[in-house]
Amino acid sequence: MNYIFNTCAIIGPGLIGGSIGLGLKKLNLVERIIGIGRRQESINAAVNIGAIDSGTMDIRNGVQDADIVIAATPVSLITQNLKSAIPYLKKGALITDVGSTKSFILQELKDATLNSGAKTNDCFEFIGAHPIAGSENKGAEYAESDLFVNSICVLTPTESNSKSGIDKLTKMWKLLGAKVISMRPEEHDAILARTSHLPQVLAYAIANIIENEQWKFSAGGLKDLTRIAASDPNLWIDICGQNRSNIINSIDLFIKELSRISSNLSSCNDDQLKEIFANARKHRNAYYNIKND
Amino acid sequence: MNYIFNTCAIIGPGLIGGSIGLGLKKLNLVERIIGIGRRQESINAAVNIGAIDSGTMDIRNGVQDADIVIAATPVSLITQNLKSAIPYLKKGALITDVGSTKSFILQELKDATLNSGAKTNDCFEFIGAHPIAGSENKGAEYAESDLFVNSICVLTPTESNSKSGIDKLTKMWKLLGAKVISMRPEEHDAILARTSHLPQVLAYAIANIIENEQWKFSAGGLKDLTRIAASDPNLWIDICGQNRSNIINSIDLFIKELSRISSNLSSCNDDQLKEIFANARKHRNAYYNIKND
Repeated sequence: MNYIFNTCAIIGPGLIGGSIGLGLKKLNLVERIIGIGRRQESINAAVNIGAIDSGTMDIRNGVQDADIVIAATPVSLITQNLKSAIPYLKKGALITDVGSTKSFILQELKDATLNSGAKTNDCFEFIGAHPIAGSENKGAEYAESDLFVNSICVLTPTESNSKSGIDKLTKMWKLLGAKVISMRPEEHDAILARTSHLPQVLAYAIANIIENEQWKFSAGGLKDLTRIAASDPNLWIDICGQNRSNIINSIDLFIKELSRISSNLSSCNDDQLKEIFANARKHRNAYYNIKND
Repeated sequence: MNYIFNTCAIIGPGLIGGSIGLGLKKLNLVERIIGIGRRQESINAAVNIGAIDSGTMDIRNGVQDADIVIAATPVSLITQNLKSAIPYLKKGALITDVGSTKSFILQELKDATLNSGAKTNDCFEFIGAHPIAGSENKGAEYAESDLFVNSICVLTPTESNSKSGIDKLTKMWKLLGAKVISMRPEEHDAILARTSHLPQVLAYAIANIIENEQWKFSAGGLKDLTRIAASDPNLWIDICGQNRSNIINSIDLFIKELSRISSNLSSCNDDQLKEIFANARKHRNAYYNIKND
């Protein structure tokens, strides 16, 4: 059998990790998947749906034979878990993640590797990845083998990565159905601040200013607008903490746009207002292939 | 047969007007429905789905026999249409609308009535209504007889309205499935600025700051957040124009909340940030009956 990797370790086989496991198994891309979890129930859930072959709570046992280690936990635990794994990694192992922030994780791992005295390329290499998929749900029970089909997966390789490592990781994500786009970690973080982290903050902000007895006065716009506010705040505190300045910049940009609308409202400049609204609709509809009538 | 109204005129039998017509017919609440439209195709579409019995482009013909006249056009045309109808209204007719703004429309009609020399209560009375239902779609082809089931319909009667007029309109909306809530027009406009008009402005603003090649870097949050940006900008220019100061106030309030998030991000005050996020989620989930895990 022509596997991409023989043994795969997935740290945190939840919604994303479990979906990767299901996809890899379904496509027969790896020989064996070991799940590493913090709770026996999570491990059992992942084994039960067939996302992993076996599981362990011991990081050493989990990673020592792995040709690829995928950290699929919330971003707050990615560096911590990978740092714990470093001493036990197999020579030549490929390490990757699925986190929504990239620069912070890369820097932390660089520092950890330097401090440990290990020379990254000799014993293992890390390539950051961010599959842009998922939902406000979490846990292996929501995992699906085709979660990444038609999604985007951003890879953030650096000059210290090997061509073979990049190629293998690219191949894996492509086979899982994703369109792979490579860019610098800083670029990823700036874009995602605007397209994902800012929307999240906006959803929390609007939900906060609606008073309890006011929610019912909405035809559905408010429900859509705040859907992502149902996400776990802890996950988002961590993402915010790892991408602070980009998110602050995006908030500034958004407030500028909102102030422009407000000042046109104030000055009754309806032509300008109409241009702003029509432009927004045009760009939004163009992307989602909706015809303007 | 015990009709609430014998003859009903619906000015603008589109998504909302057409749904009212379908509901009234289905429940047998009126004897006859005349649709008044600006284009023969719109009238034909409403006749074809059975939302109106007959249609006309002539406002006099349309309203002269009507016991209730429902203005269901975009807000920009409501006062214009009702003003044109005033000279031809049947004595005792009940006039109402479905507009998203209430104070502006009421004031305009009050002025028109005073200027025409007609004493409102003697010849007809106007009661503002706002059924909070619908979508970004428009046209009778999207009309549904049960569009208002489990929705909210706000009525904004004033001291000049008769008890019987208020009772009849309340009964009609209740039978169409809506929960009827009465309040002052100013109160309606302040609440809706926050729950409906602000979300609309936010959707346009976020759609405007996402660059064309950035849209794809989102897992779905952005799509939900901007769904209402697909709405017709013209409708929203008019709503904004009729509720300017409330919308400006809501934008100010929102910017304050967003700035609070930004400054906590800046000062790494993660405890405060977590409280803001968790509070938003709690209130949103409580309203939509979603359990926090």
